[in-house]
Amino acid sequence: MAHLSDMEIARQAQMRPVGQIAEKLGLKEADWEPYGRYKAKVNLKLIDKMQEQPDGKLVLVTAINPTPAGEGKTTVSVGLGDALSRLGKRTAIALREPSLGPVFGVKGGAAGGGYAQVVPMDELNLHFTGDLHAITAANNLLAALLDNHIQQGNALGIDPRRVTWKRALDMNDRQLRQIVSGLGGRMQGMPREDGFQITVASEVMAIFCLAKDLKDLKKRLAAIVVGYTYAGKAVTAGDLKAEGAMCALLKDALNPNLVQTLEHTPVLIHGGPFANIAHGCNSVIATRMALKLADYVVTEAGFGADLGAEKFLDIKCRLSGLRPHCAVIVATVRALKSHGGVAKDALNEENIPALKAGLPNLLRHVRNITQVYHLPVVVALNRFPTDTQAEVDSVLEAVNALGVKAVLCDVWAKGGEGGKALAQEVLALCEKPRQALHFAYEDTLSLEEKVEAVVQKVYGGEGVDFTAAAKRELKKLEQDGFGACPVCVAKTQYSFSDDPKKLGAPEGFRVTVRSAKVSAGAGFVVVLTGDIMTMPGLPKVPAAEQIDVDEQGEITGLF
Amino acid sequence: MAHLSDMEIARQAQMRPVGQIAEKLGLKEADWEPYGRYKAKVNLKLIDKMQEQPDGKLVLVTAINPTPAGEGKTTVSVGLGDALSRLGKRTAIALREPSLGPVFGVKGGAAGGGYAQVVPMDELNLHFTGDLHAITAANNLLAALLDNHIQQGNALGIDPRRVTWKRALDMNDRQLRQIVSGLGGRMQGMPREDGFQITVASEVMAIFCLAKDLKDLKKRLAAIVVGYTYAGKAVTAGDLKAEGAMCALLKDALNPNLVQTLEHTPVLIHGGPFANIAHGCNSVIATRMALKLADYVVTEAGFGADLGAEKFLDIKCRLSGLRPHCAVIVATVRALKSHGGVAKDALNEENIPALKAGLPNLLRHVRNITQVYHLPVVVALNRFPTDTQAEVDSVLEAVNALGVKAVLCDVWAKGGEGGKALAQEVLALCEKPRQALHFAYEDTLSLEEKVEAVVQKVYGGEGVDFTAAAKRELKKLEQDGFGACPVCVAKTQYSFSDDPKKLGAPEGFRVTVRSAKVSAGAGFVVVLTGDIMTMPGLPKVPAAEQIDVDEQGEITGLF
Repeated sequence: MAHLSDMEIARQAQMRPVGQIAEKLGLKEADWEPYGRYKAKVNLKLIDKMQEQPDGKLVLVTAINPTPAGEGKTTVSVGLGDALSRLGKRTAIALREPSLGPVFGVKGGAAGGGYAQVVPMDELNLHFTGDLHAITAANNLLAALLDNHIQQGNALGIDPRRVTWKRALDMNDRQLRQIVSGLGGRMQGMPREDGFQITVASEVMAIFCLAKDLKDLKKRLAAIVVGYTYAGKAVTAGDLKAEGAMCALLKDALNPNLVQTLEHTPVLIHGGPFANIAHGCNSVIATRMALKLADYVVTEAGFGADLGAEKFLDIKCRLSGLRPHCAVIVATVRALKSHGGVAKDALNEENIPALKAGLPNLLRHVRNITQVYHLPVVVALNRFPTDTQAEVDSVLEAVNALGVKAVLCDVWAKGGEGGKALAQEVLALCEKPRQALHFAYEDTLSLEEKVEAVVQKVYGGEGVDFTAAAKRELKKLEQDGFGACPVCVAKTQYSFSDDPKKLGAPEGFRVTVRSAKVSAGAGFVVVLTGDIMTMPGLPKVPAAEQIDVDEQGEITGLF
Repeated sequence: MAHLSDMEIARQAQMRPVGQIAEKLGLKEADWEPYGRYKAKVNLKLIDKMQEQPDGKLVLVTAINPTPAGEGKTTVSVGLGDALSRLGKRTAIALREPSLGPVFGVKGGAAGGGYAQVVPMDELNLHFTGDLHAITAANNLLAALLDNHIQQGNALGIDPRRVTWKRALDMNDRQLRQIVSGLGGRMQGMPREDGFQITVASEVMAIFCLAKDLKDLKKRLAAIVVGYTYAGKAVTAGDLKAEGAMCALLKDALNPNLVQTLEHTPVLIHGGPFANIAHGCNSVIATRMALKLADYVVTEAGFGADLGAEKFLDIKCRLSGLRPHCAVIVATVRALKSHGGVAKDALNEENIPALKAGLPNLLRHVRNITQVYHLPVVVALNRFPTDTQAEVDSVLEAVNALGVKAVLCDVWAKGGEGGKALAQEVLALCEKPRQALHFAYEDTLSLEEKVEAVVQKVYGGEGVDFTAAAKRELKKLEQDGFGACPVCVAKTQYSFSDDPKKLGAPEGFRVTVRSAKVSAGAGFVVVLTGDIMTMPGLPKVPAAEQIDVDEQGEITGLF
């Protein structure tokens, strides 16, 4: 079995018509619309209709810091969902939608792997049901209305030097990071410094993922700060009368998308901000809907727990009231050896010293989730054929020493069957008396103190250096009334620190914050650390070069 | 009835499930996929499967030069289709997909009007099935690969000053017409002059609309010229290995979209280049599919016959082998008075002298279609309540004097019933012995001569002034082997000339061509006249400001 590629396995899948998946969740035909034979959008009004229903239990899947070795977080999420289904539990999985950027860049598809995948895989990784395009369009409509306002007399007095709203494309395109727009004379706009970010980093995506319903979406869109007047007053999307049209572009997209795993477990895939440059969680609407429709909901946060889980808990849970019952932290022997300094081509060899050198990365994440957030944890050790028993034992022992269980998991090769032990432990954790969720910081701290708290408590750093510009910006945001917001730290995913080269569990480091801006509609303040950029670039040989379509319409090279 | 708005009428429509519309065309369930309950994509492989079937008859609907008074070309196309259905003919309508640019700018929706509309109207005018987004993404992937190539060592030696490929957005955004991209230092791309065009003007859209199938699409994409090397050699998308990934982005979009009129006549809506800045016709694939599935196919070309019909015939028919049986030219009394110099607020009053002053616009279009292209014509006089009998008679007489019938048509108020007289005349023209279609110019003329032929024979101008740059560019294109291509003239839609203020049937004018570029994948040479731009701007009060969504998800202000 295991010698087939992910794509071959996905292509051989016997998918069920999406109506059958909808039926599993108890949906009536009026509750959903088909998008092709194997995708559907579920009407978000269902959440209100089911208000009286009790919620299912929410399981957060997170991971160690990613390495080139791969940790398989989505694979484990999917396999865990399938395992819970096999154990007879009514289960739904809630995931993020892929961005086109990585598909054409380096990463390839993002729908699990092996026998723990979401299908239809190629559609999911290309346009899916068009949500990211809708978000891009809403983002850029606001930009066009803003620059048109300046061009047509600028009644609001917007200072072209202080426009903060960026245009967006769902593409890795470094050429658009910094541009000068509006050139060519007085009929062609106002020349100003400008730039694009990738759609998954845009505030519209964040708002989309945090909105409760259409009304809340519109209110949040109107609150977006797009820049400042010559007098220093914030200008909002509402001032430009943009929120209605933006909402019209987003209204269908706001309905969560329903697909299936290879084992036909229902999956809601909806919203997809990156966790390094954005808040990293699927939509609140999809999670809430899944909790109404299933007894167990497996959801995933982006990248490592320092980014994805931190933002899931400190932003998404804080702002939405959602509360997980437990967390799964995914690790692999290979990735831990990579954290211990082993090069990619030597990962197949047993290397206990390197493994032990890398283990502190996992252990710090375990401690963070249990001690900072007070959330029960199980470690899922995602098995690779090259793992030796001694390596596996080292991991299990080190985790057990913290009073936490670690479970081997083989969902890549075996699907849900390979995740049953993990599922049993998850069920056990869900039965435990529930402790109140703690956050890394309280709302009442200053914005600087909140960043300090994340860096010290979650990253394990010594402290934060704010550039003069960042200090000024944070001060201004507090004056403007955004001091009570949580912070969304843009940081490299490869390290606890802001230096992607500091692997394992670095100590004694400081994090540099170089700028800050408010996402007033999303309800958080974004702080940028290190060299992190909100528009990625393509590598020397982009994945796009390998992608092709044959005359029958079969896509190759996507994964 | 007639006091309801287009949107109210559309909203009250009793749409049939799209499967019933597919059945009308004899489609099997395996031939199409649902996109929601009222939209579908029909698999383009059907065309090959039906190769042995005879084609139906193709009817081209075109119009006089548009005015602020409105001529209702799409309304007549839809009403004519419904009338043919009412007369018991198996009919399909083939139309272009709307762009978001006009929706948020000035024009509002583009799906007919009154009781001659295509539904679902709001979905059609927003994202529809995502085709335009797919085209935008393919366009911008090529741009990103191009700039990434330059950044990563520029092995092909692309001259950043001679990049001709532009990025695209489906948005009216003048701020992006002329930009400098790649600023910020050596890690952020190569600084160069750059710019965006609206998606409907992009060569990817033209290719999408001219491709026969997936294989042809890929071949055409590979042929796109994106710029020139320092040595002056053309660089193609194929050189950048971009065509496979672009094709993957476009493969689902390439299947035509099936929707319905208010009277449930099947409508294939697919591809949508503007006719002023691009070639203005729906896809060849949709037209060919419609001809396989129906006995009569009503299709529409953009703006006036000088642009839309000229390009439909000289580009689309020439390159695809499609041949219409007859043409309908749509005019209104109000629009003709507008061509005669009447201001918009005085159009309700009878004004025979102004009408007679405006009539030559219609008559020149009639002569062009019959005498230049040798195509049988009927004039559809699209009735407005304010038209007086004397006005109507003036039009009918003037047209009859050319040996052409003019038929009153009241489809806005009466749906297909109001188009029966027109349908009868169309059926009569389709029965006539068919003359060979002529073109405005032969392939063998030089590029300059081709533009001269269009200006003199179709526009009625005296000749063409080529700027030195345009002459040089055309010469270079001939040297590069593109001399046999047809020309796609970018020109204002408001006048036969390149000056939007010259209404009616201006004479003695000259047209200025200021630049030229090849669309090698599409297979034509684009020449830009006058001030025409490929990225529109928004007006002082954009339509977007009026668009809203209520809590139930109903959109208002779209039309």
